[in-house]
Amino acid sequence: MEAIVKNGLLYDFYGGLLTDKQRRIMSLYYNEDWNMSEIADSEQVSRQAVHDLIRRSDHVLEGYEEKLGLLKRFMEQRELLQSIKQDLHELSGDMLHNDKLLAVVAKVERLIEIEE
Amino acid sequence: MEAIVKNGLLYDFYGGLLTDKQRRIMSLYYNEDWNMSEIADSEQVSRQAVHDLIRRSDHVLEGYEEKLGLLKRFMEQRELLQSIKQDLHELSGDMLHNDKLLAVVAKVERLIEIEE
Repeated sequence: MEAIVKNGLLYDFYGGLLTDKQRRIMSLYYNEDWNMSEIADSEQVSRQAVHDLIRRSDHVLEGYEEKLGLLKRFMEQRELLQSIKQDLHELSGDMLHNDKLLAVVAKVERLIEIEE
Repeated sequence: MEAIVKNGLLYDFYGGLLTDKQRRIMSLYYNEDWNMSEIADSEQVSRQAVHDLIRRSDHVLEGYEEKLGLLKRFMEQRELLQSIKQDLHELSGDMLHNDKLLAVVAKVERLIEIEE
């Protein structure tokens, strides 16, 4: 996984444990896709200060993951869910419009959505 | 959900953020099913001290859940997974020994296990 994607997921999981300021800047960076210069302008600080805050916050979040491992657990589940979805699609190919099966597929898809 | 079950799950999720001493006592209480008097004897402290430590630790864990809500998220997923498992069992009743379907059921069961 790309580092920026992993860090965004770590923020999604553990962001609630950061300070308000860290959360505000991390959210602009990881959720709103602002770049560091845009955040620096908006916060009226240097780009370097934004860079340092993001790196420090990433490090804090990595510390939580080392202690709790919830992102790892979640990634394993997601992989298994994707493979279940694939299996069900193959099954629905075999069975042609079984309503019950389609209902199960919809639930699995909803579950993958919740995780995202 | 019973409070003791919920607190045990909170410990499973966020226990990594407690101190070593808190973790040791919480694990005896929630994972090993020792009662407070047994823990007090083993730790050579009063039953009241064990009681207070467990209540304080519960409170710390509840604080993490208020900030992160990861247990709530996992419980919602698990409910949906249980209903998927139920649907698949009904489907396998209809289809009698479809190997692909049985493989999917096994994966869903594995997923519910990972969550437990």
